[in-house]
Amino acid sequence: MQRYFLKIDDFNNNIITGDDVFHIKNVMRLNIGDDIIIICESIPYLVKITAVEKDFVKYKILNEINGNTELPFLITLFQGLPKGDKLDDIIKNSTQYGVTYIYPTIMKRSIMKIDKDKIESKLIRYNKIAKEAAEQSNRLIVPKIVDIIDLKKADFSNYNVRLICYEENAKNKEISNFKTIIKNLKENDSICVVVGPEGGIDEKEIEYLEEKGFKRCGLGPRIFRTENAINYVLASISYEWELKNE
Amino acid sequence: MQRYFLKIDDFNNNIITGDDVFHIKNVMRLNIGDDIIIICESIPYLVKITAVEKDFVKYKILNEINGNTELPFLITLFQGLPKGDKLDDIIKNSTQYGVTYIYPTIMKRSIMKIDKDKIESKLIRYNKIAKEAAEQSNRLIVPKIVDIIDLKKADFSNYNVRLICYEENAKNKEISNFKTIIKNLKENDSICVVVGPEGGIDEKEIEYLEEKGFKRCGLGPRIFRTENAINYVLASISYEWELKNE
Repeated sequence: MQRYFLKIDDFNNNIITGDDVFHIKNVMRLNIGDDIIIICESIPYLVKITAVEKDFVKYKILNEINGNTELPFLITLFQGLPKGDKLDDIIKNSTQYGVTYIYPTIMKRSIMKIDKDKIESKLIRYNKIAKEAAEQSNRLIVPKIVDIIDLKKADFSNYNVRLICYEENAKNKEISNFKTIIKNLKENDSICVVVGPEGGIDEKEIEYLEEKGFKRCGLGPRIFRTENAINYVLASISYEWELKNE
Repeated sequence: MQRYFLKIDDFNNNIITGDDVFHIKNVMRLNIGDDIIIICESIPYLVKITAVEKDFVKYKILNEINGNTELPFLITLFQGLPKGDKLDDIIKNSTQYGVTYIYPTIMKRSIMKIDKDKIESKLIRYNKIAKEAAEQSNRLIVPKIVDIIDLKKADFSNYNVRLICYEENAKNKEISNFKTIIKNLKENDSICVVVGPEGGIDEKEIEYLEEKGFKRCGLGPRIFRTENAINYVLASISYEWELKNE
């Protein structure tokens, strides 16, 4: 069933506004009497559409829906800025895998240049991609693309678990750092993950991050392209913490 | 270091032929004296280039390289044929994650139509994508895109572990089938995985597969798009079987 994230103001008025109105009317072709799911402040509700107007849709709540679909940890990705529109795919896919926050991060080997005037409009577009992916993958929150920043300006003080996806560790057959960290996660841990751009992470950046308490991690013996590393991390956390064996 | 997969005939003659010659000369701009890695029959060798000619490159072997980069199980993907060029990405990404064989599979809800005359040329292109991805991700084998087939014509007799990635299980909070199967894998197990196309797997197809000994598996509480499901499976197998905790 189609899902829409609502801001608290609209929710308090039982109303849907903005781009979602177009989506409901013209993409999904929904009408009065149809049921949808709305999510506000991480709680999903089954609702019935009661009015479809030009600029808004009204609904009544049928019931709250049980069931958490969020990973048990907050996970922030510092993604080395990649080329072209690869970041779109990273946002889309890591949203399906359960990321919480993303900072597109300018690193030494990032080739793409960012026009400072365009950051605002880029962030709007990125956050729209995250919202759509969150709706499609049954998330209860929309991951936030917070800002495009320089690595040296990143503030890591909010995270108590800090890891670097580092292909040199993979090449050198280091196979225990990552799993040891993931197995030992504790309730309320907040994790941040640094992934380099296409050219990898510069040795100086690794030193800088290690001074900040980061641990280098190999993700198995194969080498991932930049756009796949975070998904390995998120899938592993899901496998370890969301699934059970009998 | 750049890697190239060689057929045994070329390897026996210490020679590289075909498209790789163009890649060595014009993309990598390598020359006499440069080192590369060649892989033949799953064994990687460090070699030095000794001649660069119009149609071939010669080399001498310096030494065999130790280190397996292959998952400990053979994994065959039956991927419900998706729309557009999504299959290209599925081949590229699942190669990085360690897939062994792929059958693009025509299922009830596959929208893309396959022109039978074009299967041959499509397979050539798909296998080329797999070869390039295998070289970039340090694989020792090139995953094979075997054939484009109808689900009902697939032969599952070679696989002793058979699983379906099934989003209805995810929605119904089934969280133990997949992890139980993965934890209990044994040496020489051969695994096949069915992933539906965009519209999912038809209930009749599920019944058919269950009669063939398949088990439905949820992959955590979020819903993956078709192109991401196999990567969750492969990452989990890697995390479980290739990484260690201290």
